[in-house]
Amino acid sequence: MRVVETVREMREYRRDLTGNVALVATLGGMHAGHEAHLKRAREISDIMVGSLFLNPTQFSEGEDLASYPHDRASDLAMFEEYGTEVVFAPPDSEMYPASDRTEVNPGRIATVLEGAHRPGHFIGVATVVAKLFSIIRPDIATFGEKDAQQLRIIENLNRDLMFGIKIERIETVREPDGLAISSRNRYLTEHERSVAPRLFEALQSGRSLWRSGDRSADAIRALISDLLGQEPILRTDYVSVADPQSMEEVTGDAEKGALLSLAARLGKARLIDNVSLD
Amino acid sequence: MRVVETVREMREYRRDLTGNVALVATLGGMHAGHEAHLKRAREISDIMVGSLFLNPTQFSEGEDLASYPHDRASDLAMFEEYGTEVVFAPPDSEMYPASDRTEVNPGRIATVLEGAHRPGHFIGVATVVAKLFSIIRPDIATFGEKDAQQLRIIENLNRDLMFGIKIERIETVREPDGLAISSRNRYLTEHERSVAPRLFEALQSGRSLWRSGDRSADAIRALISDLLGQEPILRTDYVSVADPQSMEEVTGDAEKGALLSLAARLGKARLIDNVSLD
Repeated sequence: MRVVETVREMREYRRDLTGNVALVATLGGMHAGHEAHLKRAREISDIMVGSLFLNPTQFSEGEDLASYPHDRASDLAMFEEYGTEVVFAPPDSEMYPASDRTEVNPGRIATVLEGAHRPGHFIGVATVVAKLFSIIRPDIATFGEKDAQQLRIIENLNRDLMFGIKIERIETVREPDGLAISSRNRYLTEHERSVAPRLFEALQSGRSLWRSGDRSADAIRALISDLLGQEPILRTDYVSVADPQSMEEVTGDAEKGALLSLAARLGKARLIDNVSLD
Repeated sequence: MRVVETVREMREYRRDLTGNVALVATLGGMHAGHEAHLKRAREISDIMVGSLFLNPTQFSEGEDLASYPHDRASDLAMFEEYGTEVVFAPPDSEMYPASDRTEVNPGRIATVLEGAHRPGHFIGVATVVAKLFSIIRPDIATFGEKDAQQLRIIENLNRDLMFGIKIERIETVREPDGLAISSRNRYLTEHERSVAPRLFEALQSGRSLWRSGDRSADAIRALISDLLGQEPILRTDYVSVADPQSMEEVTGDAEKGALLSLAARLGKARLIDNVSLD
């Protein structure tokens, strides 16, 4: 497996690749969630290209950029284990030379939910993903349903800026107790970890209410908020029942396909999770 | 020469092209300025791809989108005359499906000069150029020095979003009396046309002042403004002495390479022109 650190070298390496190329883009700190991406990418492509770049522009002031879990050797080992051909692992200065100033703006969808709580986050995500798409020119790129709003924004970006890539959605991977696997779970103390499954449980309760016939978005949001409120160490950022395309809050009844999502703080960690109504 | 109207077909056509591909992107209304692009592109590429798309998003409310000169047959004939392989001429609905929402923002440089007078103009330009770059994936793309700020923004876009394209700058083509050739010159009455060369003359006078040793940006701007003010039917939008990278106004003395530019209204036309200090 080759590890490439410059844009120029990555571009040249790409030029000589033939067959269907799949990109698995990561921030590092890889875990079983990333393994699901690699497994799927291997199934549907001829050649896998990984990227390992802790993108600073998608972190806001005061967030966990400096402490974000990463271990380059073990990340590279995971890429290698699944037969990745080449990993693009540039330093910040390659992706953001001093002169850099052009940004990709996903529009209104970037200002709600995670975007409302993390100003600039999705402009950072969209811009770095556009750069990666231009450099690597994959035929396929995997993105996780765990970050549902990000996934939708990247699907929009791919469609609107006409990259012509197949975006492959990867289902959320969960611990046996239901907690969505995330790099940020490593921030949790033992007690916090024992409380963390409440997030997915609350979402499931909201979905059960909807399935039972009470489709009022307000009722679903209220139920989830109440459940989260029962854990004093959980601080809820938002509870949402949103249109899965626009990510705008649903008023009235929620239809099939609506996205239930939430963000909550637990100790040093800020966790997100979501389920679809179906 | 093939004319292609859908993104899908253009992408497929591109996939089978080998050799160095040059893109000459136009709004239509082609003239001797575009001929200079085609001549140069032919010299430096193996295959020429043209685009013919009157991009609505780079026109503001109240501008000349509806009246912009265009003649599809004569535009296509010009492409053909120079040996263009394929012209991409999509309808608006191909480039901007109803769902479209992602924009490319060039940053602060897009808010000065033309950007200050045409809000949203450069976001429209940058977004459509990013789309064209993604669809056509040229090795080379020509852009004119006549639109100096646009050229700089596209160079930034290409660098920042890492398209890896060689941007080939094409010198401004002028009428024998110095007027920069532009589609919008067709809006001029005979009298207005006789006044229009004052724009380039004023820029040349500004450059002469600088060459004579008076390098004060204020003095250069004042001289050009005074000269334009002598023509009662000319209404000046701006006169600028700017840094050629950032397009920020120069204070104090202008250095070699600074950009003298102006925009003025003359009857129904809004004309721009520029020269470099050298």
